[in-house]
Amino acid sequence: MSMEQISAVLDFFKIELPSWGFADTGTRFGKFLQDAAAVTVDEKMADAGHVHKLTGSCPTVAVHVLWDFPSGRTAAEISALAAAAGIKIGSINPNVFQDQQYRWGSLCNRDPAVRQAAISHIKDSVKIGRETGSGLLSLWLADGLNYPGQADIIARKKWLADALKTVHGMLPPEMTMLVEYKPFEPAFYATDIADWGMALLLAKAAGPRAKVLVDTGHHYQATNIEQIVAWLLDENMLGGFHFNDRKYADDDLTIGSIDPYQIFRIFHEIHNHHFRTGSLPRIAYMVDQSHNLKPKIEAMIQTVDMAQQLYIKAAIVDRKKLAAAQAAEDVVASENLLRDAYLTDVRPLLAEWRKSRQLPADPLAAHRDSGYEKRIAAQRRAAHGQKGGGAYA
Amino acid sequence: MSMEQISAVLDFFKIELPSWGFADTGTRFGKFLQDAAAVTVDEKMADAGHVHKLTGSCPTVAVHVLWDFPSGRTAAEISALAAAAGIKIGSINPNVFQDQQYRWGSLCNRDPAVRQAAISHIKDSVKIGRETGSGLLSLWLADGLNYPGQADIIARKKWLADALKTVHGMLPPEMTMLVEYKPFEPAFYATDIADWGMALLLAKAAGPRAKVLVDTGHHYQATNIEQIVAWLLDENMLGGFHFNDRKYADDDLTIGSIDPYQIFRIFHEIHNHHFRTGSLPRIAYMVDQSHNLKPKIEAMIQTVDMAQQLYIKAAIVDRKKLAAAQAAEDVVASENLLRDAYLTDVRPLLAEWRKSRQLPADPLAAHRDSGYEKRIAAQRRAAHGQKGGGAYA
Amino acid sequence: MSMEQISAVLDFFKIELPSWGFADTGTRFGKFLQDAAAVTVDEKMADAGHVHKLTGSCPTVAVHVLWDFPSGRTAAEISALAAAAGIKIGSINPNVFQDQQYRWGSLCNRDPAVRQAAISHIKDSVKIGRETGSGLLSLWLADGLNYPGQADIIARKKWLADALKTVHGMLPPEMTMLVEYKPFEPAFYATDIADWGMALLLAKAAGPRAKVLVDTGHHYQATNIEQIVAWLLDENMLGGFHFNDRKYADDDLTIGSIDPYQIFRIFHEIHNHHFRTGSLPRIAYMVDQSHNLKPKIEAMIQTVDMAQQLYIKAAIVDRKKLAAAQAAEDVVASENLLRDAYLTDVRPLLAEWRKSRQLPADPLAAHRDSGYEKRIAAQRRAAHGQKGGGAYA
Amino acid sequence: MSMEQISAVLDFFKIELPSWGFADTGTRFGKFLQDAAAVTVDEKMADAGHVHKLTGSCPTVAVHVLWDFPSGRTAAEISALAAAAGIKIGSINPNVFQDQQYRWGSLCNRDPAVRQAAISHIKDSVKIGRETGSGLLSLWLADGLNYPGQADIIARKKWLADALKTVHGMLPPEMTMLVEYKPFEPAFYATDIADWGMALLLAKAAGPRAKVLVDTGHHYQATNIEQIVAWLLDENMLGGFHFNDRKYADDDLTIGSIDPYQIFRIFHEIHNHHFRTGSLPRIAYMVDQSHNLKPKIEAMIQTVDMAQQLYIKAAIVDRKKLAAAQAAEDVVASENLLRDAYLTDVRPLLAEWRKSRQLPADPLAAHRDSGYEKRIAAQRRAAHGQKGGGAYA
Repeated sequence: MSMEQISAVLDFFKIELPSWGFADTGTRFGKFLQDAAAVTVDEKMADAGHVHKLTGSCPTVAVHVLWDFPSGRTAAEISALAAAAGIKIGSINPNVFQDQQYRWGSLCNRDPAVRQAAISHIKDSVKIGRETGSGLLSLWLADGLNYPGQADIIARKKWLADALKTVHGMLPPEMTMLVEYKPFEPAFYATDIADWGMALLLAKAAGPRAKVLVDTGHHYQATNIEQIVAWLLDENMLGGFHFNDRKYADDDLTIGSIDPYQIFRIFHEIHNHHFRTGSLPRIAYMVDQSHNLKPKIEAMIQTVDMAQQLYIKAAIVDRKKLAAAQAAEDVVASENLLRDAYLTDVRPLLAEWRKSRQLPADPLAAHRDSGYEKRIAAQRRAAHGQKGGGAYA
Repeated sequence: MSMEQISAVLDFFKIELPSWGFADTGTRFGKFLQDAAAVTVDEKMADAGHVHKLTGSCPTVAVHVLWDFPSGRTAAEISALAAAAGIKIGSINPNVFQDQQYRWGSLCNRDPAVRQAAISHIKDSVKIGRETGSGLLSLWLADGLNYPGQADIIARKKWLADALKTVHGMLPPEMTMLVEYKPFEPAFYATDIADWGMALLLAKAAGPRAKVLVDTGHHYQATNIEQIVAWLLDENMLGGFHFNDRKYADDDLTIGSIDPYQIFRIFHEIHNHHFRTGSLPRIAYMVDQSHNLKPKIEAMIQTVDMAQQLYIKAAIVDRKKLAAAQAAEDVVASENLLRDAYLTDVRPLLAEWRKSRQLPADPLAAHRDSGYEKRIAAQRRAAHGQKGGGAYA
Repeated sequence: MSMEQISAVLDFFKIELPSWGFADTGTRFGKFLQDAAAVTVDEKMADAGHVHKLTGSCPTVAVHVLWDFPSGRTAAEISALAAAAGIKIGSINPNVFQDQQYRWGSLCNRDPAVRQAAISHIKDSVKIGRETGSGLLSLWLADGLNYPGQADIIARKKWLADALKTVHGMLPPEMTMLVEYKPFEPAFYATDIADWGMALLLAKAAGPRAKVLVDTGHHYQATNIEQIVAWLLDENMLGGFHFNDRKYADDDLTIGSIDPYQIFRIFHEIHNHHFRTGSLPRIAYMVDQSHNLKPKIEAMIQTVDMAQQLYIKAAIVDRKKLAAAQAAEDVVASENLLRDAYLTDVRPLLAEWRKSRQLPADPLAAHRDSGYEKRIAAQRRAAHGQKGGGAYA
Repeated sequence: MSMEQISAVLDFFKIELPSWGFADTGTRFGKFLQDAAAVTVDEKMADAGHVHKLTGSCPTVAVHVLWDFPSGRTAAEISALAAAAGIKIGSINPNVFQDQQYRWGSLCNRDPAVRQAAISHIKDSVKIGRETGSGLLSLWLADGLNYPGQADIIARKKWLADALKTVHGMLPPEMTMLVEYKPFEPAFYATDIADWGMALLLAKAAGPRAKVLVDTGHHYQATNIEQIVAWLLDENMLGGFHFNDRKYADDDLTIGSIDPYQIFRIFHEIHNHHFRTGSLPRIAYMVDQSHNLKPKIEAMIQTVDMAQQLYIKAAIVDRKKLAAAQAAEDVVASENLLRDAYLTDVRPLLAEWRKSRQLPADPLAAHRDSGYEKRIAAQRRAAHGQKGGGAYA
């Protein structure tokens, strides 16, 4: 692959950052706080813009309606904040899990009033999407059951399917709705959208602008995620990704930190689809990580860099040779063609592209040199004072 | 629930035994041989008939075409063998995994000649089904990949979908085709029908008489199988079960031997569907176990007994009370209603039903008293001489 | 087993409740609050005493030093609160995970000052143990790493081993120190005491009064927990249990709610040890659950009831017959002997024992009838006003 | 790191090949046969020698007593075969799992005669080790239970511990005995040596020349294997490795084919131990893979190449910088130091070392060019005729 082609691949590959990835997060046992963590939406936008300035690859930021649109702040204001930081508003993420009324679920709640409240909140989110020019409504539900017998699984399925149809009806024509699945947490016995099969059936029933969202950390151990991605692409039902990595559960670690080869294989299937069909659907590549210990901005830069490396590695697989080796049932040669690409050190190519785009060759070093983190830490400490880490019980 | 109702439930609940469950089986490390294990189809039919005589609940036997229809034996002959043993031929299981030509897959093989060979074998199986009066074609494929890059997942998906459509076209109107899924083994990196979502898409594409087969051992750890069953029922896509239990992989242990509560919850969802809709589709309950150490016939009797206990326990859940407790979001009461049924000792009810049907109250004891095992062990030792256990390498 | 023997078993089997099990808990996504949840240590003691009054089996309550001994409350005062509620202080649980200084670990922290702070807190905990008459110091560390390379695993091991030796040196002769293990959460890449093997080596190195604590939810999927328990008993290193159940991760659901047969098998190994050796070491049976949705007190009563049922079921296994069946390598009979005990409905026996001890036959019904929950909900709502559920980010 | 240092690392890093890795293997569902697969020990030695000639890194071959020392062939003869192929006999692997007498276990069997038979076979293996100059006795037991209740876990533990002590007593002073653990397969409910903790206790009880063998595929999902390795090194109990990779169970795929970063991290802990202590114990690096579909020799060459790459990558971690970054709790920099080494393309270094050692720069290409495979395929087809693939039932 020529440097020109690689540059085109990198120009094309955009990664959306989550506003909440700049805030303090933690586990049920508490949060370890960072002075530089963003508290306000203004700070989150500034940080996301900073990462985009350094990487040139993160032009949009995902927003979480409940946390980023506090009362009194209009969508136009938030859009302006983003614009001032050199970015745009990306996917709109309703929050239908935090409020006490969602104790027994949101769109799966047996109480029509609660389902209606969730739909209303989503409707507001769609409106925000319209006003901010976002094309994506990204739905993750925490709905589920903690104990066998707690509720009728199918009654909830029907409420959910109806609600998603209603939500689909609210979408403007240019908006896509993403349905995310997850087999565990925060519900323990059953989650109402547990796997890609359920998400696909629900999305198909909702309408043509509903697609499936794959979070790389939302699968049981050993699941072949790249196979699911290949199937979703072939069924024209892949809407996008939430990037992260994990050792056991939904750890929300930075991507590629535990199993980089798996992420490479996912990208390989995407490039494969392109090779096979000559085209690619619009796929939203979004980060969804929880930087409990790493400095937030550093973690984001590291994430973008690793995702880019793995994406290029997958792009340079020699697909013609691969097809030939596969046709000969030459398992060793086929595997080696994949591995040759994976083992290639693409960091020099990435640095070259960055320089050609007037970006720092090493964005992490540039960030550390910039003094940005120190500056905001001081400002935010002054602004927000003592923050609370919470307690488990 | 009255004894009459329980009796009706038990009269209705039929379990199909697999002919191969009476033969010597093992692991890749070898087989431990039993004198009483069946070698010929005559012996398998006799054993299956013996279990049916003792339990009154196993009127059909699943056959494996390659092993049970050796050259020179017609379908009519095998049917007659079954009839002589007091049973009928049940599901027809083609074998498209053992022959050397299937090294790179059967219906997913890139070689059209191999795919055709597999289809031919399945066509022969359909014919056998017709001739034996079986209503079920049960398809399990060992197709898959051992290494990343080995083949194009989607090319294989398309060959498979085409082949299944062809197979569906061969079915007589009264025959159902079951598509089984499995996420691992004997292929290690990817299996071509890895989960219920893939099986459902393939079955829907194949035609209206294709349904999904759930093998209780074919899921990754922690998968909520009962939720999948509930969804398949609601989508009218559940065709049947392969019963077994396991600790980690597809261990093919006797049902309920490791996690009986999970099997109970699966049955609970089936009874729930009945309660909710007033009807049940035809569901094939089939055993698929590998009795490597247990005496084959004892293992079967134990299996039938445990399945019956768990099925009745699930039947006696007080569903009206459960619906009321759920409506009140009373998690503890809801769970306890399930648990009360599960904790009930239904062995006396089962014994009573057996006696009312002129069956031994304790079929295992009756079997042990009968001397059947000792007798066949002697006969078969004489007939088959030294058998080989195989070696790993 | 005679009713007298069963009564003796039940008289012997005491279960310690955790004070934090009565408080509001949740996941990283927030807490759903209950009016009746305990906030103060006074309320926790009252609730624990209420459960003991109804069940007669929970004479002690585990305390969490940070949460239950707020400044200004002496150990004597807390002991008096317990006594007033009819119970005693049980295991003392230091908290070395919540404070911001523990960001990089407590006893494994590279900073000697932090390790010293943790040791000091544990020393205070030992003092509390002495003053309250508790015989147990129960240590769970959240120490671990989120990313490969973050720290040197063995440097941390050595700091930890030294610290545990120091802690052991502080114990009064009548006090036992329990070392708990957990393979994941809240650290994601590695936890410093990941499994029973590590806990055992550390406990042995610490000194003779250090034992291993088994939390039933702290294992990877498919781990044979009963085998670990049997080994620990044989090595004289089992100190106690934290009871809970789970579907995938450390869900902290009520015991037996997901896989009751596994808990039964654990109890079976304990009774087996008794049968084999004629004696049992002191084993602390403690609940460690997180009742996020269930009413706290109801969940506790349900837990005690289920633990008792499973403990009796395991007690009534006919061990002489079992030994004989095992000696004959009769797998089916051996398994059935276990299963016969498990399938026995012991609820009538339990009710009879309760009545003989002047306890309500159905403690959950008695609790619901008592009006206790309604009363405390009103009181606590008045006392504590609006509580906060927290937010993920 | 200088090229000289890298060369020294590669000169030091020797990998032992298993004789059985050249033979036809498969799954319980059958074997797909290869003409070029080795059948006789002569053929296995020739193939192992061929791989050593191409890689320069496999001077020894592990032998399986039952399969490689057929009656009438002395140890001296087999040694001579090896010598003729340019290699030596490495670890001696007794086989105490294939014979019908081991149905209920070998060293854990309740029947003293069977335990004695197993010990005798191991004694013969030690003798072979003595005569062939091997320093390693490598013990893997298939012992375990398929069903709860089948046997008393602790009775078996005691028989096993006694037997291992006896075996240790037979060892000549220069011989090490390796105790391997595995949590599943071929026994399903429990294996008698399930994890590293059990292996360690048994090895310590057996005597000072007993160490633990880590098979990279013998852990439950998500287990942090590198942490176990680090602990074993620190406890001076690590004896060696069986290399392979897997997706779910003990798939015995070629190393690094599924999760190369994990193998890198294991090597990182070994180099870390060296850095920390200034020395390394003798560690046996052995391949234990099952090349069911890949050509056997190609799979071995691929394995050696990948192991070498990952071993060098781990060697070039800048440990001084890493220690400094860790001391500063700089998680991002620490992780990046690991990752920088991992992302480095070491293939040119490896090729340079090979050329300097008069080895082909690309051993796989050299093998394909050599015509060896074609030649032996023809010879062996002629010699062995029709081989059988076995059948599941």
